[in-house]
Amino acid sequence: MVRMDGPDFSKGVAWQRGEYVPIAQASVPLTDWGFLRSDATYDVVTVWDGAFFRLDAHLERFERSCRRFRLDPGKTMAEVTDILAQCVKLAGLRSAYVEMLCTRGQPPWGSRDPRQAVNQFYAFAVPYVWIANEAQRERGLHVIVSDVQRIPAASVDPTAKNYHWNDLTMGLLGALDAGGDTVLLTDAAGNVVEGPGFNVFAVRGGALVTPKEGVLEGVTRRTVLEMAQALGIPVELRALPADELRAADEAFLSTSGGGVLPVTRVDGQPVGNGAPGAVTRRLVETYWAWHRDPRYSRPIDY
Amino acid sequence: MVRMDGPDFSKGVAWQRGEYVPIAQASVPLTDWGFLRSDATYDVVTVWDGAFFRLDAHLERFERSCRRFRLDPGKTMAEVTDILAQCVKLAGLRSAYVEMLCTRGQPPWGSRDPRQAVNQFYAFAVPYVWIANEAQRERGLHVIVSDVQRIPAASVDPTAKNYHWNDLTMGLLGALDAGGDTVLLTDAAGNVVEGPGFNVFAVRGGALVTPKEGVLEGVTRRTVLEMAQALGIPVELRALPADELRAADEAFLSTSGGGVLPVTRVDGQPVGNGAPGAVTRRLVETYWAWHRDPRYSRPIDY
Ligand SMILES: Cc1ncc(COP(=O)(O)O)c(C=O)c1O
Ligand SMILES: Cc1ncc(COP(=O)(O)O)c(C=O)c1O
Repeated sequence: MVRMDGPDFSKGVAWQRGEYVPIAQASVPLTDWGFLRSDATYDVVTVWDGAFFRLDAHLERFERSCRRFRLDPGKTMAEVTDILAQCVKLAGLRSAYVEMLCTRGQPPWGSRDPRQAVNQFYAFAVPYVWIANEAQRERGLHVIVSDVQRIPAASVDPTAKNYHWNDLTMGLLGALDAGGDTVLLTDAAGNVVEGPGFNVFAVRGGALVTPKEGVLEGVTRRTVLEMAQALGIPVELRALPADELRAADEAFLSTSGGGVLPVTRVDGQPVGNGAPGAVTRRLVETYWAWHRDPRYSRPIDY
Repeated sequence: MVRMDGPDFSKGVAWQRGEYVPIAQASVPLTDWGFLRSDATYDVVTVWDGAFFRLDAHLERFERSCRRFRLDPGKTMAEVTDILAQCVKLAGLRSAYVEMLCTRGQPPWGSRDPRQAVNQFYAFAVPYVWIANEAQRERGLHVIVSDVQRIPAASVDPTAKNYHWNDLTMGLLGALDAGGDTVLLTDAAGNVVEGPGFNVFAVRGGALVTPKEGVLEGVTRRTVLEMAQALGIPVELRALPADELRAADEAFLSTSGGGVLPVTRVDGQPVGNGAPGAVTRRLVETYWAWHRDPRYSRPIDY
C-alpha cells in the first residue's frame, strides 16, 4: 500500500533510535565516537529474490566483531533479524544490501573512557549494491595492485569488520586514476591481501589460492571455500605474492557485493588468456544456484 | 541575550549544511562515507580566554590534510575562520574545543568512485576538553605502553589528521583496565610513537627527545619545539625506544587537549623521581604564557 502522505521509503529504510526512517533521513550524531573515532563495527548481509543469503553467518560474525571491539549492540540476534527484515519489507526490496552496525556512542561530557559510553545500534536496507557493473562482470575486472599497505593486524584486527578504509580508499583513488576498475592492497611483504569490499583468489593448476591471514574472513570467501569442497576443487590458504597473482591461470574476487567476480587484468596485463576462466565461471554459477538452497536462504515474510 | 524559545546553544554549537545548531542536534548522514568508510579529515583548535591559539597553524594543517586525502571542504580558510568563531560566539564560550572537519559525502547511488562524491564541511565548538583531569595534571599521568601497534604510515598517513583510532581505542581500553590513565602505542620496532590525542616527549640529560616520524605533527608538539628553542633546551627528533622513555629523567605529553602534560609513571614504574620534572614544569608555564602572546593568540570578537 502506498500512502501519499507517508514517509518515502522507496530509496531504502534505516532503523535508528527505535524508529524506521527513510534512508535519506538516517543520521549518526556528530559527537558519536562511531564517527569521531571510527569506533564502530558492522556487517552486511544481502537479500536476493526475497530471501536473506547466509544470514546466520553474518549475524555470527557481527556478534564476534562486537565482542572483539567491546561494543554491545544491546539487541539479541533475533531482534536484529526482525529489524533487518522490517527495513527490507518497508523498503519493498526483493534484492537488497542490508547493513547492521554498532557505534561506541559517547561517554559523559569530559570523560574519555570508552567503557562509559552507551553503545548504539543502527540498521539499514538499500537496493542491492554491485561492486562491479554488468559490463565489468561480463569482461572481468581490471585490477591494480597498490603500493598502499593494508592496515596490518597488529594495528587493527581485520577479522572484525570495521570502517578503517583510508588505505583502501587511497588505493582505490590511485587505481581509478590509472584506469583500473578497482584495487588490491598488499601487506608489508608484498603479498596481496584484500580490496575495498572483497577478498581475492588466484587459480593455479586447478587449485584455489587465497590469503589465510590479514584479511576479513568474508562470508563469500567462506562460501567459495565450501563450494570448492563440494565441487572437488583443491584449496590452499596461504600468503599470495602479487607476482603469483599476476602469473595465475585465473583470478577472481569474492564479496557480498556481487558474489564471485572474475578478474581478467592485473596492472594492465591479462590474467591467463584475458577472459573469465572456466573455474571462475563454475563458481559464479554455483554461487547463484546456492541462493535457492534452503540451507543458506531464509525467505522474508513480506 | 537568552531567548527562552530559541535553540539551546549552552552545551556547544555546530555548523552543518549551512546552519548553526545545538551540538546535541548535529549529525552526519548515515550514508556519508565520512562515517561508513571513515573517509574524512579534521583539525582541532582551542580557544583560551576568549582567543584562538595558533589558529593559522591548525588551518594550514587542515588544508594539508584535505589535500592529502583529496577532500575539498569547499570553503576558504577565511570562511572556515568565520564559521568557527561564530560557533564559539553562539555557544558563549571563553575557552573551547573547536573542530573543523570534512567528509567525503556520498557518490551517486550505485557508484563506488570517491571522485564523484560531493565533500561536506562541518564545524563545532564545545567547552574545552582536557585529556587529563586536574588531579592527573597535578601528580602527572600514569601511562601504559601498549603492544597494539599504531597504524603505520605505509597504510595511513599519520601526518594528515584522521579518525582511524581503533588501535588507539583498543590500546586505551587495555591501559584503563590495567589501572593506567592513558596509553602510548608503539611502532613495529618497539619505539613509542603517540597516544589517543597526543604526542610524547622524553627528557634525558636536559634534552628533549620526541619521535620524528610515524606521528601526527601536533601543533602543541611544534609549540614545544619552538619553546625549547626559545628557552635554549636542545631537541632530538628521532625514534624513541620504549625502554628509553622508561629510563628518562622526565616525560610529558603534548596536546591541544591540555598543552604540556607531565607523565610520572610508565607501566607502573616511576619516571625519574616520580614527580613532574623541572623541565616539564617550565614548559607548562611557558605554554600558558604564550597564550597571551599576540603572535599566537587571535581574540574573538564576541
Ligand atoms: C575489507 C573487506 N574484505 C572482504 C570483504 C568481503 O566480505 P563478504 O564476503 O562477507 O562480503 C569485505 C566486505 O565488505 C570487506 O570490507
Ligand atoms: C593521534 C594524535 N597525535 C597527536 C595529537 C596532538 O596534536 P595537537 O598538538 O595538534 O593537538 C593528536 C591531537 O588530537 C592526535 O589525535
